[in-house]
Amino acid sequence: MSSILVVGSVGYDTISTPKGHRTHILGGSANYFSIAASLFTPVRVVGVVGEDYKPEHMRILEQRKVDLRGLQQVKGRTFAWEGQYENDMNEAKTLATHLNVLENFHPVIPKEYQDSEVVFLANIDPTLQLQVLEQCVKPTLIAADTMNYWISSKKSELLKVLKKIDVLLINEAELRELTGSWNTIRAAKDVMQMGPKAVVIKRGEYGFILFTDTRYFILPAYPVEEVVDPTGAGDTFAGGFLGYLAKNNKALNREDLKQACIYGCMLASFTVQDFGVEGVLRVTQSELENRIQAYKHVIS
Amino acid sequence: MSSILVVGSVGYDTISTPKGHRTHILGGSANYFSIAASLFTPVRVVGVVGEDYKPEHMRILEQRKVDLRGLQQVKGRTFAWEGQYENDMNEAKTLATHLNVLENFHPVIPKEYQDSEVVFLANIDPTLQLQVLEQCVKPTLIAADTMNYWISSKKSELLKVLKKIDVLLINEAELRELTGSWNTIRAAKDVMQMGPKAVVIKRGEYGFILFTDTRYFILPAYPVEEVVDPTGAGDTFAGGFLGYLAKNNKALNREDLKQACIYGCMLASFTVQDFGVEGVLRVTQSELENRIQAYKHVIS
Repeated sequence: MSSILVVGSVGYDTISTPKGHRTHILGGSANYFSIAASLFTPVRVVGVVGEDYKPEHMRILEQRKVDLRGLQQVKGRTFAWEGQYENDMNEAKTLATHLNVLENFHPVIPKEYQDSEVVFLANIDPTLQLQVLEQCVKPTLIAADTMNYWISSKKSELLKVLKKIDVLLINEAELRELTGSWNTIRAAKDVMQMGPKAVVIKRGEYGFILFTDTRYFILPAYPVEEVVDPTGAGDTFAGGFLGYLAKNNKALNREDLKQACIYGCMLASFTVQDFGVEGVLRVTQSELENRIQAYKHVIS
Repeated sequence: MSSILVVGSVGYDTISTPKGHRTHILGGSANYFSIAASLFTPVRVVGVVGEDYKPEHMRILEQRKVDLRGLQQVKGRTFAWEGQYENDMNEAKTLATHLNVLENFHPVIPKEYQDSEVVFLANIDPTLQLQVLEQCVKPTLIAADTMNYWISSKKSELLKVLKKIDVLLINEAELRELTGSWNTIRAAKDVMQMGPKAVVIKRGEYGFILFTDTRYFILPAYPVEEVVDPTGAGDTFAGGFLGYLAKNNKALNREDLKQACIYGCMLASFTVQDFGVEGVLRVTQSELENRIQAYKHVIS
C-alpha cells in the first residue's frame, strides 16, 4: 500500500443548483480527492488555506487519517469559488473566483512527504505542478488534472507537465481545447502523443473513456436519479482511481486501470448526490462495493 | 422471421457538416430504417414521394428486398430537409423543412401489409401514427419514434400513441421535453408510466439506455474517430434494433432487447461515418459482426 501525495486547492464554495443553494461550504480539488482516496490508502495533502479556514474542516480530513502537515495556513483569506449549475448540470457557470491565499502559493513538499510514490497534481497552475514534481524524489505513478484556464494561459508549461506524468485525467471540453479536435477518440490519441502513458476522459453523466497505448475502454456512469451538485465529481473520480491503484500497488497495466476507473466513477456518483463533499464523505467501503455490484448489472 | 412494416418520411436532404456538404441526397426516416432493418428481415414501407423522386432511389431499396408497394407517388415535390451540424455534431440546426407531398399524406396500409407483426412508426405526426395502427390487424410488436415538434404541438395525440406501443425510441432532448425532467433516469421512469413496455434512449456518441420495467441497461456507443454526418443515426438504430428482434421472432424479454440495442447502436455507427445513407448501405453482415466483436473489447 502506497501513500498518495496530492497538491491542489483547498477552499470554500458557494454553489447554486436546481436542487438548492449552499454558502461557503468545504470544497477544493485536494479536499474532494483526499476524502475519496482516503477510503483506500493514506493521503498527504499539500496546499494553502487562510486564517479563516475552520479547524473543524481540518478535523474532517484528519479523522480519515489524511496527513495535513503540508497544508500551509497563512495570513489572508482562503480560496473561494462561487458557481451555478443550470438544469442540465453538465457545466458550472463560474460566478466568482477569489484566489486569495492561493494567489501567492508555492507548494512546499514536507520532508516526510518526499518519498511519496503516488502523486496527484490536482487542477492548479502547471508551473506549480512542475515545482511539485521537482521536489518528489521517487515517484512511481504520477497523475494530473488540468482545466481550460491553464490550457489557454499556460499551455507550454502544461505541455511540460504532460511529458512527466503517467496518467492525465481530463474532461471532454478540456480535451477539445487542448487538442483542437472535436472528436473525443481522435483527441485522446493526440493527447497520448503529448506524453502520458494513459488518459482518462471524464464524461460526467456519460461515464469515462480510458486510453492506454492505442486501445480504449469505455463505460457509462452509474445512473443517478437525483443529481444534487456535480461539483467535485472529477476530483472524486481521481481520488477513487488513484486510491485503488495505490492501495493495491498497481502498475500501469490495462486491467488495473480499468478497475481503478470503475472505482473512481462509482465514488463520483456518490459525490453528485449531495452538496459539496457530503455525499462522498458518507460512503462506506461496503456501500461502495454494493454500488459496484449494482453497476455491473446495469452494464452487463 | 417476421416482416417489418415501417411508416415514415422518404425524402431528400441537403446537409452541411464540418466534413463537407451534400445537396439533395437520399434521406428520410423510413429510408434509413429500411436500409438498416433489411440486413435482417424483409421490410415493407409506407410513405409518400413526389414526381421528382428518382427511380434509382427506389431501386436501391428494392435491391435489398424492401417492399415499396406502400410508397405512394403523388403529384408535387418530395419532402426535403436542409440541416447543418456545427463542430460538436450532436444536434442538427434545421435550415429549412419543405413538407411538400408529406403535407397531405395519409398513410394507407396495402392489403398485403396488413398482417405485419412488427411495426415501426417512424417520426411522423402522431395523428398519422394512430391511423397506421388502426389499419394493422395483428401487430405483436410496435415501436415508435417521435420528435420535439410533435411533443410540443401534438402532445395529446402522442400520449395516445404511447399507450398503444411496446417500445419507444427517443433521444435525450425529446425525453426531457416529453417529461419535463432534466434527469434522464427519472425521465425514463416517467415515460414508462405513459404506456410503453420498454424505452430506448438514444444518446448519440454516448450510446444508449434501455429501460424495461424498473431496470436499466446502459452502454456507450462504438467509438468513431471520424463522424462525417450524424443524420439518420437514430433511424438506423431503430432499424437494427427492430430488424434483430423481427428476424429472431423475439418477444420483449430483457436479454433480447439488450442484444437488439447493440445491433442498432453498431449499425448507427456505420451511418455516421459517411453522408446520408451511404455508410449503412455499404455494411455487410460480416462487417457488422466484426464491429460487434470490436465493441465487446471496448466495453469488456
